[in-house]
Amino acid sequence: MKIAVLPGDGIGTEIVAEAVKVLRALDLKLEMESALVGGAAYEAHGHPLPESTLKLAKEADAILFGAVGDWKYDKLDRPLRPEQAILGLRKHLGLFANFRPAICYEQLTHASSLKPELVAGLDILIIRELTGDIYFGQPRGRRTAVDGHFPGADEAFDTMRYSRPEIERIARVAFEAARKRNKKVTSVDKANVLETFQFWKDVVTDVHKDYQDVELEHMYVDNAAMQLVKKPKAFDVIVTGNMFGDILSDEASMLTGSIGMLPSASLNSSNQGLYEPSHGSAPDIAGKGVANPLATILSAAMMLRFSLNQEAAAQRIEAAVQKVLAQGLRTPDIYSEGTTKVGTAQMGDAVVKAL
Amino acid sequence: MKIAVLPGDGIGTEIVAEAVKVLRALDLKLEMESALVGGAAYEAHGHPLPESTLKLAKEADAILFGAVGDWKYDKLDRPLRPEQAILGLRKHLGLFANFRPAICYEQLTHASSLKPELVAGLDILIIRELTGDIYFGQPRGRRTAVDGHFPGADEAFDTMRYSRPEIERIARVAFEAARKRNKKVTSVDKANVLETFQFWKDVVTDVHKDYQDVELEHMYVDNAAMQLVKKPKAFDVIVTGNMFGDILSDEASMLTGSIGMLPSASLNSSNQGLYEPSHGSAPDIAGKGVANPLATILSAAMMLRFSLNQEAAAQRIEAAVQKVLAQGLRTPDIYSEGTTKVGTAQMGDAVVKAL
Ligand SMILES: CC(C)[C@H](C(=O)O)[C@@H](O)C(=O)O
Ligand SMILES: CC(C)[C@H](C(=O)O)[C@@H](O)C(=O)O
Repeated sequence: MKIAVLPGDGIGTEIVAEAVKVLRALDLKLEMESALVGGAAYEAHGHPLPESTLKLAKEADAILFGAVGDWKYDKLDRPLRPEQAILGLRKHLGLFANFRPAICYEQLTHASSLKPELVAGLDILIIRELTGDIYFGQPRGRRTAVDGHFPGADEAFDTMRYSRPEIERIARVAFEAARKRNKKVTSVDKANVLETFQFWKDVVTDVHKDYQDVELEHMYVDNAAMQLVKKPKAFDVIVTGNMFGDILSDEASMLTGSIGMLPSASLNSSNQGLYEPSHGSAPDIAGKGVANPLATILSAAMMLRFSLNQEAAAQRIEAAVQKVLAQGLRTPDIYSEGTTKVGTAQMGDAVVKAL
Repeated sequence: MKIAVLPGDGIGTEIVAEAVKVLRALDLKLEMESALVGGAAYEAHGHPLPESTLKLAKEADAILFGAVGDWKYDKLDRPLRPEQAILGLRKHLGLFANFRPAICYEQLTHASSLKPELVAGLDILIIRELTGDIYFGQPRGRRTAVDGHFPGADEAFDTMRYSRPEIERIARVAFEAARKRNKKVTSVDKANVLETFQFWKDVVTDVHKDYQDVELEHMYVDNAAMQLVKKPKAFDVIVTGNMFGDILSDEASMLTGSIGMLPSASLNSSNQGLYEPSHGSAPDIAGKGVANPLATILSAAMMLRFSLNQEAAAQRIEAAVQKVLAQGLRTPDIYSEGTTKVGTAQMGDAVVKAL
C-alpha cells in the first residue's frame, strides 16, 4: 500500500507530520513517499505541481495532502499559483467524488456560531462533484463582447457544463452513501435559471429510480444556503456540482464551529483517493506549532477506509481522536475554559498514545 | 409618481395589500396601478410576464412587487414558469443593482440561528449584480459533448460572463453605498478558478482608485460563505456577481433569523426600481392571513427613498415599523413568548396607526 505524502504550504507540513506519525504507529505495511506541492513546489521547481509529484501521486494508492497557498503567491500568473496543484491533481487523477462530512463533535458543540440545540449531534455529508462544472469547462478566457449589455467592451467568460454520465456517477455515489446513513439525499441545483442544473435535476431524478429506498429531495442552491443555517440537521446527504459544492461545503463545515476537525476525501472510479483536511493552509499560524492536526489525522482514517480497505485501522484512529477529546486536550482553535491547551505535536502524540 | 403594483402569487397578494395600505396613508400623490405577474398571470394570460404587465412596469417610476412561484408550476416549461417574470423584469428594465440589507432588529435578535452576541446589531448590505453573469450569458442549452470526460454524451451548458462596464457600474454603486456607511467593501469572487471573476477582481481594484477613502477587501466566495457564519459583523458592504449574490444574500438574510423583515431594491441607471421582500411566495401559508407584511412595507420605504425621492416619508415608515416592534406586535414567523401575535392585516393596520 503506497501513500504519496504531499504536505504543501503553511501549516500543511506540521499537520501532515502528525498524521504520518499516527499512520506509522498502526503497524500496517504502508510505504510512504513525500513530495513538494503548491507554493513549496513552485519555489523549488518553478511549478506548483511538478511532473515528479504528479507521477508519484498517480502511482500511489492514496494521497495524503496537507494544504496549499499563501498570500505571497497571489501575484503569480494563475497557472503557477498553488491552488493549481490541487485542481491539477483532481483533473489528472479523475477525482470526481468529494466527500465532506460536517460533523459537530459533542464536546465542541459550544464552539459553533449556531445555537447548541441546532447543531448538537449534527452529521451531514456533502458530496461535491469535483472534476466538472465551471471549474474545467471550455471555452473560457477574455474577449470582446459581441452581444450582451455592452457589445464591444472587454469581457471575461467561463463555461459551466455537465454531461449525463458525469451526473449519473456522482448521483450513484450519493445514493449509495445515503443507503449506509439516513437514506435521504438532497440534490442541490439552480434548475430555475441554469440549463446545466435543470439537466442535473433531470438526471439525478432518473438515477433515483434505482434507489427507491432512498428519499430524494431537490433544493435550489440559494435555499440550501439558507436551510443550512436555519435547520442543518434536516439534511443527511447533500449532492451537488463543483461550484455550489465549494460554497455549501465550506458553509456547512463552518456551522460546526470546528473546521479544524473536519476531514475530506476525493475519490476516482478506482477508489484511488486524495485525503486532506477541510481547512486551508493558514499561513498566519504556520510554523508556530499551534495548528490542529486532527482534521488531517481523520483524513488519514478516511484514507484507510476508502482507498486502502483497512476499516479496522480507520476505526482505531477515529476512536483515538474521540479519546483525546474526552481527555480534554484541545489545540487553540477548539480550546475553551476547563480544557487543556496543547500544540500540534502534543496532539499528534496524544492520538498515538490513545491508539 | 407612478407605482406599478405587482402582487404575484402565494402570500404576495396579502403582503402587498398591506404595503399599499401604508403608502396610501402617507398623503403623497401616488398613482398606483396593479397587474398580474408570475403564476397568477400565467393562469389568466398564459404567460408569467404578459406584455401589458411589462408595459405598466416600464412606464412606472417604481414597481412594488410581492412574490412569485408555487410548486404547481414546477412542471411547466422553463419560459412559462413564474420566476421568468422576475428575470424578465430585471432584464427588460436593466435593473442591474440589487440591494439586500441583512439587518438584525434588536427585538428579534433571539430569533437568529446564531448566538446573540454574533448577530446583535448586525447591519450588512449585500449588493448583487442582477443583469449579467451566468443568469443571462449566451450560449446555453443542451448538446452532444465534443470534449471533456465523456465526449459523445449528452450535456447541458451555460455561459458565465461579465464585461468591464458591467463590473465598473456595480462597483461604483458599492463604493458609493459604503461611503454612506462604514466605508468598507468586500468584493466576493472566485478569481482562483474563474476567468470571469479574476476579471471582476481586477476591474473592482481599478474602480477603487476613485474611492480611496473606502477600504476594499477581496474574498473568495467559499470563504465568504464561511465568514458570514463565523463573524458576520465583520462585513459592511458586500459586492458580488449575480450567482454568488443569489447564494450569499439568502445566506446572510437567514442569519438574522427574521427574513420576514428584510426588504430589497433592484435599480437601473435612472433609479427606476423594483422593490420586493427578500422572502418568497410561501405557498404553504398563503391565504391564511398570517404572513409577515413588514418586509414588503419596508421595501415600500426603500422605494420612496431610492426611486421617488421621498426620504422623509421613507423614514416615517421605518420609524413606524420600529414602533410596532417596540409595541410587541409579532406575526407568527417572528413571534416569541411575551409578545402579541397578530395577523397580516392587523400588522399593516398597526403600522398605519404608528405612522
Ligand atoms: C483552492 C480552490 C481551487 C479549491 C476549490 O475551489 O475547489 C478550494 O476552495 C477547495 O474547496 O478545495
Ligand atoms: C427566482 C429566482 C430566479 C431568483 C434568482 O435566482 O435570482 C431568486 O432566487 C432571487 O434571488 O430573486
